Amino acid sequence: MMETITSVEEMKVWSRRICGDDKVIGFVPTMGCLHEGHLSLVNASLSECDSTVVSIFVNPAQFGPDEDLESYPRTLEADKEILRSTGVDVLFLPAKEDLYPDGFQSFVEIEGKTNYLCGKSRPGFFRGVATIVLKLFNIVNPHTAFFGEKDWQQLEVIRTLVRDLNLDIKIAGQPIVRENDGLAMSSRNRYLSEEGRLSALSLSQALKTAQSRIEQGERSTEIIRNEIRQMIEQKNGTEVDYISVCDPEDFSESEEIRSRTLIALAVRIGKARLIDNRIIERA
Amino acid sequence: MMETITSVEEMKVWSRRICGDDKVIGFVPTMGCLHEGHLSLVNASLSECDSTVVSIFVNPAQFGPDEDLESYPRTLEADKEILRSTGVDVLFLPAKEDLYPDGFQSFVEIEGKTNYLCGKSRPGFFRGVATIVLKLFNIVNPHTAFFGEKDWQQLEVIRTLVRDLNLDIKIAGQPIVRENDGLAMSSRNRYLSEEGRLSALSLSQALKTAQSRIEQGERSTEIIRNEIRQMIEQKNGTEVDYISVCDPEDFSESEEIRSRTLIALAVRIGKARLIDNRIIERA
Repeated sequence: MMETITSVEEMKVWSRRICGDDKVIGFVPTMGCLHEGHLSLVNASLSECDSTVVSIFVNPAQFGPDEDLESYPRTLEADKEILRSTGVDVLFLPAKEDLYPDGFQSFVEIEGKTNYLCGKSRPGFFRGVATIVLKLFNIVNPHTAFFGEKDWQQLEVIRTLVRDLNLDIKIAGQPIVRENDGLAMSSRNRYLSEEGRLSALSLSQALKTAQSRIEQGERSTEIIRNEIRQMIEQKNGTEVDYISVCDPEDFSESEEIRSRTLIALAVRIGKARLIDNRIIERA
Repeated sequence: MMETITSVEEMKVWSRRICGDDKVIGFVPTMGCLHEGHLSLVNASLSECDSTVVSIFVNPAQFGPDEDLESYPRTLEADKEILRSTGVDVLFLPAKEDLYPDGFQSFVEIEGKTNYLCGKSRPGFFRGVATIVLKLFNIVNPHTAFFGEKDWQQLEVIRTLVRDLNLDIKIAGQPIVRENDGLAMSSRNRYLSEEGRLSALSLSQALKTAQSRIEQGERSTEIIRNEIRQMIEQKNGTEVDYISVCDPEDFSESEEIRSRTLIALAVRIGKARLIDNRIIERA
């Protein structure tokens, strides 16, 4: 039976009790509107941990003033239905007022890694992410927390947070889950029109093509970047936010493709800003 | 027998073991050069907790580029001798490289409260304090942490950190310990010349006089502030950094003295920058 907890205090009491019993807590923090990507995290937790907590909280601190906080899809009843069938122990649904009470003024800033990619396009985004993740970690007290590799930079930022602030939490990254045609699963795919949905295919296709080009010997990051841009921009209604061919850990770019490379991109299509990425190991 | 631990990992192992035995850990974080003020924190911990950890670490992140990081007094052998006689369980002496390894980039920022008093005079100071305190809390895992009220703003900043980031740690503030003549104990008193030591008395004396004036009916913060300034500036070699008559929690100032008021001040005397404060409850 899945328990639903809405109070921060009750969540703490629950997790302290479970830890006292020497049970291992797995934690999947989400913003809801659950899809197969989230479910792969939940399933990883269910198979690795004794108890699994899933949180749903649309975190205002990580949205910029012109971003989609208001319109972010909320599908709580469907999310509950999905989670009930999985074997999750606790659905944690904290209230905004409980997490950010009047007078709230403490934030976590990760510096170097957040100057690139989404951190550059979305000022304050990772500050909001790092702050809520640290808060949720302190409340839920997990042994392992599960994050998707679609948000690759987020995963790296959270690994940095855990290492730098001496937290005892294992961060488990899980592979991107894709639709049959290759589109990376995302709650924001709902924003796509029928035409936009077709254009959005170019993201994963361009990444795949780039991988082949590198495997065939191309070594210039500039050429790869330009080819990806062309593939995406030739589709209707796409607007490239960034395309980066970079180091998978510090996100620095170099002229020549290195032995292990992250290609990460963000593209606007209508109301949606979609991200995708691929790690390429050079032969 | 006091154990000395220098490794972050070993400190974690020790504290996880003690917590597993359901023992309550008290924690006194210091920068060393221990005096009676520190000892009052240690004694409070010894009487309230099962085990007491004292850390000594001169935290580079809380010193500005023109501040006294290099010259800050380090008296480790004397500190050890003092602590050995108290019954402290662990002296934690972490290495800088272990707390701030290459690539370290995560910091905690407390916003509103740090725009006043020492936060205004020492940009980055509370960012450094909040970051190291959070790290030490995560390593030592205490039930209660002890801080002196001489650093009143620091105490409030740490209470805010604990509340905002959902930590399960009790913060116990302890009264200022003073020399017989009233000077607040501080490691930086060592910087004072004989003449400076005499001038430094004006801080506690001015605070005491201000208290009498308020108890006798004075209600103007401006008059009180000016009287304190005059008392201090008439002494040789004093340079007032700030004098604030303000709210003890958010540090906002008002024209009229409120029912509960903090008077906080910082004064430079030669190489020393000294702080002192007094809470005044109006009749």
